[in-house]
Amino acid sequence: MTVYDDALKLHEENRGKLAAMSKVPLNDARDLSLAYTPGVAQPCIEIHKDPENSYRYTSRWNTVAVVTDGTAVLGLGDIGPAAALPVMEGKALLMKKFGNLDAWPICLDTKDPDEIVSIVKAMSPGFGAVNLEDISAPRCVEIERRLIEECGIPVFHDDQHGTAIVVTAALINCLRLIDRSPEDLKVVVSGAGAAGSSIARMLYALGFRRIYVFDSRGLVGRKTLKNPTPLKAELFEFTNPDDQEYASLAEGLKGADVFIGVSAPNLVTEEMIASMNEKNIVFPMANPEPEITYDKCIRAGAYIVGTGRSDYPNQVNNLLAFPGIFRGALDARATRISEKMKMAAAEAIASLISPEELRRDYVIVSPFDERVVSAVAKAVGKTAEEEGYIRP
Amino acid sequence: MTVYDDALKLHEENRGKLAAMSKVPLNDARDLSLAYTPGVAQPCIEIHKDPENSYRYTSRWNTVAVVTDGTAVLGLGDIGPAAALPVMEGKALLMKKFGNLDAWPICLDTKDPDEIVSIVKAMSPGFGAVNLEDISAPRCVEIERRLIEECGIPVFHDDQHGTAIVVTAALINCLRLIDRSPEDLKVVVSGAGAAGSSIARMLYALGFRRIYVFDSRGLVGRKTLKNPTPLKAELFEFTNPDDQEYASLAEGLKGADVFIGVSAPNLVTEEMIASMNEKNIVFPMANPEPEITYDKCIRAGAYIVGTGRSDYPNQVNNLLAFPGIFRGALDARATRISEKMKMAAAEAIASLISPEELRRDYVIVSPFDERVVSAVAKAVGKTAEEEGYIRP
Repeated sequence: MTVYDDALKLHEENRGKLAAMSKVPLNDARDLSLAYTPGVAQPCIEIHKDPENSYRYTSRWNTVAVVTDGTAVLGLGDIGPAAALPVMEGKALLMKKFGNLDAWPICLDTKDPDEIVSIVKAMSPGFGAVNLEDISAPRCVEIERRLIEECGIPVFHDDQHGTAIVVTAALINCLRLIDRSPEDLKVVVSGAGAAGSSIARMLYALGFRRIYVFDSRGLVGRKTLKNPTPLKAELFEFTNPDDQEYASLAEGLKGADVFIGVSAPNLVTEEMIASMNEKNIVFPMANPEPEITYDKCIRAGAYIVGTGRSDYPNQVNNLLAFPGIFRGALDARATRISEKMKMAAAEAIASLISPEELRRDYVIVSPFDERVVSAVAKAVGKTAEEEGYIRP
Repeated sequence: MTVYDDALKLHEENRGKLAAMSKVPLNDARDLSLAYTPGVAQPCIEIHKDPENSYRYTSRWNTVAVVTDGTAVLGLGDIGPAAALPVMEGKALLMKKFGNLDAWPICLDTKDPDEIVSIVKAMSPGFGAVNLEDISAPRCVEIERRLIEECGIPVFHDDQHGTAIVVTAALINCLRLIDRSPEDLKVVVSGAGAAGSSIARMLYALGFRRIYVFDSRGLVGRKTLKNPTPLKAELFEFTNPDDQEYASLAEGLKGADVFIGVSAPNLVTEEMIASMNEKNIVFPMANPEPEITYDKCIRAGAYIVGTGRSDYPNQVNNLLAFPGIFRGALDARATRISEKMKMAAAEAIASLISPEELRRDYVIVSPFDERVVSAVAKAVGKTAEEEGYIRP
């Protein structure tokens, strides 16, 4: 039995993974009169007076809608909203287990950004926050930006920012370990989709100045990429500062200090790793098959290696970020999840490893480290307060 | 402390009533690999091959979206989607407690029927069924009809049909008790909104032929109601068969055998009850204050009295219907909830009182009677099969 066989069996035997439950007793007519009619009229009246009371008298303070259109599910692609449901249920479970959040899947049978935005806005009075999930680029970027501006509750697209936050956390610790400043280091990012773009943006915010992003057509840059999408044109602003024209990923990696892969399997060879600078940092994270395996990285002399997998050191897992981010945003009564809040989350994750503990094979903590969620939540909440993104 | 004070306290202390929970373990990396990546890809692939598999590998087989726009909440009216949330959470709890269903509130910030229909259709891949709730008439009727035709999963507007089904169940037993046929009896319905219209329709289906419906403007009929809404014009087809022109509810009740009230407080006097036929049946169910109190009905000589309240005999409570209806529809893999399925539900509820047990103060069972849900579910499922409304 493989993990896939076992997983199918788990899903079938339990008939799905997610359930609803009551937080109050419902054993007799008296219980019903409080939880339902006639007593329920009273919280309704209080919320009608002030919608803010919905966070006081309902579960809204703790709920997250996990919204997808099923267009970019895992590595499977556009498999549709019903087929995305196992992932959304899984995400809801992780929200519960790690963030004590009450999340529910919303799988939408539309790919139209306008319609997705208007549906999520229409649903927002019943939820505390929105997690966008597995929506394909570049639509996901537009959808998230519009919802952040228009929706009034925190909206976060984990596929864009979850990995970016954890990569940033790991890199903060790598820089400490090798005692270098980000502005001196050359970074190559393979993948210019939702995750790659968000990673490049966060690394720039962290202080990296020599960032080179490759997509499947080659180097992203004014001279090399004709007819860029708006999302890729944005990368021109803060990547490839010296207008390089590397003909290939291999050429770009020569003399690079950092490689971040969120692209496709087997794009990187041992020779390419060996062509990088000394004390290099290599994070091949394509899912489920990486750009280059952990073992090959080590053999090629990579100094610090991180992967997306739980069976190797330094697992870059977005599970380190999203539960604490939503927990912090909801607890702080935040109105949005900002760039600074994401950076604060990365710093909080990084800080969980002390300078004395830091090692090449321990630059990022395990998702099962029990300090993670509260550290991230606290940092996110504090930043929301500093920025004034708090409900009145 | 009143029930309203206690209810507010319950809602505040528990911070709402509804939560999400996991049905599978999530204690280590192995558990995660089955419930989430990479294992979760397998059920996704199976559902992508055949969307019907979503009922096999996810919780969809057991989920109900409780959808409102907050326009007709309890007796409070159009208080908006956020203020409707306590009722929707309560409904979800009742679904769980009585039907073992996993329901989640969806509160929509739009009143546009087209938009509500398109949102519910878009969300349908993630749910097993839809319960429409507290949407004002006549929009609720149009929205339900369109969704039943277009949505592909069972859709049921409880405010229309829940009370109608339970009233019908109670009347079936009343007819047995007084040993009369429906076609001979004169019925007056006060209220021509969503509930009143559905009641009139079901009573016609049960065999009543002399049905007179009053709204706040008076008798519904070709001669008495000018410029009717489409919903009221439909009532012309099967009510007021002899084109009566009763000037008032009082006039209509003279010589009536049955009074059904789903309208407003204190519309009916003891004199009006006394003007009805012998062995009359009086169900004043306006919420929270009835058309006439139980005590006044008895004093005026009413033969069988039913109310919406749990503190008097014969509680006509929609809780008798909806949990079993959704349970039955989902278990039978029904594609819709039809008129025949509703009637089968009413007959199943009625049948729980044997001829020997039947009394004037016991024509309908308690919602806490443990036989109710399975009896209703079985009847609904059987009827769905007979009608062929089953997913292939």
